[in-house]
Amino acid sequence: MGQNLYLSNYELNEAIKILFEKIEEKGSYEEIDTEKTCGRITWEPIYSVISSPFYNCSAMDGIALKSESTYGASEKNQVELKEGEDYIVVDTGDPIPREYDCVIMVEDLIGNKESSVKIYKSAVAWQNIRPLGEDIVENQLIIPSNHKIRPVDIGAMLAGGVNKVKVYKSPVVGIIPTGTELVEPGSDLKVGDIIDFNSRVFSAQVLEFGGVPKRYGILKDDYELIKNTLIKAVEECDIVLINAGSSAGREDYTADVIRELGEVFIHGVAIKPGKPVIMGKVKGKAVIGIPGYPVSAYFVMESVVKKLIEQYIGFEGKELKKVNAIISRRVMSSLKYHEFVRIKLGYVGNKLIATPLTRGAGATMSLVRADGILEVPQSVEGIEAGKQVEVKLLKEEEDIRNTIVCIGSHDPIIDILSDLIHVKKKDYYLSSAHVGSMGGIMALRNGETHIAPIHLLDMENGEYNTSYIRKYLSDKNIKLIKCVKRIQGLMVQKGNPLNINSIKDIAEKNYRFVNRQRGAGTRLLLDYNLKKLNINPKEIIGYEREEYTHLSVAAAVRSGDADCGLGVYSAAKMMNLGFIPICNEEYDLAIPHEYLELDIIKGLLEIMKNKEFLKELEKLGGYEYSEVGTII
Amino acid sequence: MGQNLYLSNYELNEAIKILFEKIEEKGSYEEIDTEKTCGRITWEPIYSVISSPFYNCSAMDGIALKSESTYGASEKNQVELKEGEDYIVVDTGDPIPREYDCVIMVEDLIGNKESSVKIYKSAVAWQNIRPLGEDIVENQLIIPSNHKIRPVDIGAMLAGGVNKVKVYKSPVVGIIPTGTELVEPGSDLKVGDIIDFNSRVFSAQVLEFGGVPKRYGILKDDYELIKNTLIKAVEECDIVLINAGSSAGREDYTADVIRELGEVFIHGVAIKPGKPVIMGKVKGKAVIGIPGYPVSAYFVMESVVKKLIEQYIGFEGKELKKVNAIISRRVMSSLKYHEFVRIKLGYVGNKLIATPLTRGAGATMSLVRADGILEVPQSVEGIEAGKQVEVKLLKEEEDIRNTIVCIGSHDPIIDILSDLIHVKKKDYYLSSAHVGSMGGIMALRNGETHIAPIHLLDMENGEYNTSYIRKYLSDKNIKLIKCVKRIQGLMVQKGNPLNINSIKDIAEKNYRFVNRQRGAGTRLLLDYNLKKLNINPKEIIGYEREEYTHLSVAAAVRSGDADCGLGVYSAAKMMNLGFIPICNEEYDLAIPHEYLELDIIKGLLEIMKNKEFLKELEKLGGYEYSEVGTII
Repeated sequence: MGQNLYLSNYELNEAIKILFEKIEEKGSYEEIDTEKTCGRITWEPIYSVISSPFYNCSAMDGIALKSESTYGASEKNQVELKEGEDYIVVDTGDPIPREYDCVIMVEDLIGNKESSVKIYKSAVAWQNIRPLGEDIVENQLIIPSNHKIRPVDIGAMLAGGVNKVKVYKSPVVGIIPTGTELVEPGSDLKVGDIIDFNSRVFSAQVLEFGGVPKRYGILKDDYELIKNTLIKAVEECDIVLINAGSSAGREDYTADVIRELGEVFIHGVAIKPGKPVIMGKVKGKAVIGIPGYPVSAYFVMESVVKKLIEQYIGFEGKELKKVNAIISRRVMSSLKYHEFVRIKLGYVGNKLIATPLTRGAGATMSLVRADGILEVPQSVEGIEAGKQVEVKLLKEEEDIRNTIVCIGSHDPIIDILSDLIHVKKKDYYLSSAHVGSMGGIMALRNGETHIAPIHLLDMENGEYNTSYIRKYLSDKNIKLIKCVKRIQGLMVQKGNPLNINSIKDIAEKNYRFVNRQRGAGTRLLLDYNLKKLNINPKEIIGYEREEYTHLSVAAAVRSGDADCGLGVYSAAKMMNLGFIPICNEEYDLAIPHEYLELDIIKGLLEIMKNKEFLKELEKLGGYEYSEVGTII
Repeated sequence: MGQNLYLSNYELNEAIKILFEKIEEKGSYEEIDTEKTCGRITWEPIYSVISSPFYNCSAMDGIALKSESTYGASEKNQVELKEGEDYIVVDTGDPIPREYDCVIMVEDLIGNKESSVKIYKSAVAWQNIRPLGEDIVENQLIIPSNHKIRPVDIGAMLAGGVNKVKVYKSPVVGIIPTGTELVEPGSDLKVGDIIDFNSRVFSAQVLEFGGVPKRYGILKDDYELIKNTLIKAVEECDIVLINAGSSAGREDYTADVIRELGEVFIHGVAIKPGKPVIMGKVKGKAVIGIPGYPVSAYFVMESVVKKLIEQYIGFEGKELKKVNAIISRRVMSSLKYHEFVRIKLGYVGNKLIATPLTRGAGATMSLVRADGILEVPQSVEGIEAGKQVEVKLLKEEEDIRNTIVCIGSHDPIIDILSDLIHVKKKDYYLSSAHVGSMGGIMALRNGETHIAPIHLLDMENGEYNTSYIRKYLSDKNIKLIKCVKRIQGLMVQKGNPLNINSIKDIAEKNYRFVNRQRGAGTRLLLDYNLKKLNINPKEIIGYEREEYTHLSVAAAVRSGDADCGLGVYSAAKMMNLGFIPICNEEYDLAIPHEYLELDIIKGLLEIMKNKEFLKELEKLGGYEYSEVGTII
């Protein structure tokens, strides 16, 4: 794109180094009540002001007395002591008067007279006494500098008489969303609008990093407007983020505004996504221009803004944990960039399998679904399938161990299963990738998945699924978990205004069709019918337009982009579309037999027979589930 | 103690099971703005309301046009297109009008005329177009139930048109501190006062667990007062914690009050520390009586209240990570209790060594200093030194790897080193245990420590440290990192009112002395002098009274408990005491030579030569450091 012509291509760490040198921000402190310091970072070492206990106190319930008054006491020669004269009664924690030097616990006292007791063994000085300073001695180091304060630290500091603490001041981070097309969440949307969610994500991230977010209102793409807001922001904040779109025009504004008011030292870093980042300063304060594409923005926040905030709070968050995994598909990468690849992880057959997610910079769901990040250094051109790679974890390793990997054809019931299993079995998860039935078969072949939802019609014998497993997975022992029979048909506008009645109509009357991707069972179903009808795919307008799920086909039809598409009844119903049934097909889960022994799979089978699940199927409609959960 | 006679002794998990059955709390939800949901737990699955993008938009900067108008275009046969008629100019993200079906990017356009371009290759339908729903399709599952919301989830939800989210309501947890002896932090302390820091620690913990703390003012031990406050609290809160002291009398109140207003089902659980916990309910709300000793309270909060709060928020925090370690000392344990032992961990010679910390239930510092928790089940009577044990980590394993373990004699400069090293080398830590010089020698012998600060005077030849190393560590190659010469002397009241001038005086004039523990170099120094003076230790009043650090001795003297004690000048100065010099001794760090190669030790040596460190030594006073950091 345009800016490539003039953007720089700094190596990431080099760019950050330059940024830090230019800003030379050391952070500052504030003094706050000790009880409010949890999670904050100490500015200086914390020394106790008083001892704890700050007086000698009793460690037991009993009596305090002089040890010499007990000398000679024995079973035979019990010594009687008078309250007031020889001893006083003390509870645990009570101070020991100066004249006494030991405590005898209540269990060792004989007699229940009001004002006297007998003892049968002598005591030694300091017995059962918690001496002054036993826990904390005045002037003792309690916690060091740059320490993240925990609840127990608060207890020790207060016990040590420290009632106020100097902690690093959390930097105020200004967030300025710009873009004429931006609208606030919840506004009435019209074509061309873009919902400003980036600035909300930034706010949440800034909080996570230890800063205080301050969000400014959306600005139109207006140089003066952006300039005046930035002038205001650098007054009010320690760091300012300007969220420009990544298109050339808009970014020029951000860079030029910063340049006019201060200095731009970096424009373009060799990371992908995230390249078109701007680093500069105004009035000595860091101003970062962040690309508009959400995934690009995410990585700039994580790799630049996080480190910047850590400079201010004197504390470095832990690096993400790394695990080794086998990459299941080839990863292409450019020598020009350090690339961040979102990864789906799954323990399949004791191997940790890393499957790359979609690379699109606009794919927010790829961040939601990612289990980890694979970083491909600038020097590397790509990684071959089967190679071992190091993946930075975004989730707990244990959760990944308890995740059922599900790759194959999509049906709304997969979403319901993945929700229900986690609700019913707290530790279990199901994560699904929608690559169509044949994609599922391939994933099974590569050992990338536990289960593969498929609905594959054999063109010869009209049989479902089994023949494909025989054909492509003959070397493996694959079982089928029967799932549902579902109605496939044509999704059309509500009320079917064009009066579409069959696949034949589409070809003859030139309706605009929206198709599924190659390898999708639904596409094979179409091809099967076209073949039967002797229709050449070329005659179908939109045959080459590919969508990846039933819902996306339905969405395309409802938007009017297409007149019809092939898909399941439940999707049509969800999108409130008309539906013309074509056939009843079998949607099953293919699974290597050894995985049937896994607890997570047993859990899944339970859920599939669970009343709540069947109730949800009824709600969706168009399913026949007499065989659900039976294994063949 | 008294309550043992009537307290029950439920196994912990059994007690919690009973508690949950009695409370049957399922939690409730609240609906809040999506942008405010970070860290909250989803109450139900979140499905998108709109698609993202919700219209077909351009994936590039370029022109939008009909693919058919490009057919036949080639290098030789370039096709000219007119703006407005054949195409419109689009930026990335701009909507594609219905009449167009593809985008050609600006880089593939020829000519810079105002209103026309030439193209040299044909385009296909949907090229460079982000179709409606490419990222998120309407009605698609975005995140499941019981999911802890992250910043990226907020982005996806807002992009999917989800502007409000049902999340679990955080339970309000009432905290009622009781105890006539309790005072607020910061009040003028008099003997007998106990600072109420527990309720502040609880508040911080409740927040950590996902609840909302509501702290009530301190209550005197008054039945009616506690009763009326509890009535109010169960109205205002979902869970109520009453922090009774662990002494019998006070605890009876709590149990009786709960019993009068509702039901007590558990009083006493088989854990140590933490035994005297009370579990009950009032008006269906859980009321927990928590022991007063801070360490007991901590474990009850972690093992009972945490799980209780998790019930309300539908989310279980991760279990603490476990590591295997070698226990360095015998751990005694009672068959009556499941015991929680606070552990100091150190990677010493590639072995992870677990050293038990003091067991006292009042020792808040043992929680601050703990790296992990060793749980000794009820069925186990004790663990022998050298055995492998499983320790739950309270710190990052990596931080423990970067921690210098320092066991031996205490001097204030150790505190300064442990602060400076972390300030100067962010990833490095020094953790010290004060067990005296001989304790340090033994720790070196058992391989429990990297370095051992010692100042051991050879009674025969008056030589320091070296002869003890020869004697006790002959089988190891031990080096000495020279540290300081420091002045040892008698610490006395400011101005020396008793006019104490020598150790001889103490015996002759029967001054009250405070001694150091067996194995402390300072105690050996005393014994050395007593021997020289032919004084029998029995003649010294308080010879048997043992303190573990110079500061504790100084504190004892200043409080007037003792007239004098032996210690270093810096401690006397800190506590503003009088000081009578006795001798100049050598305080060095003994270290196995192989550890000199460790980065953390190299870091330490740097710090010891650092100007800032020497400046601190000057401030403390009484040190001579010409040789500091040299190795012999």
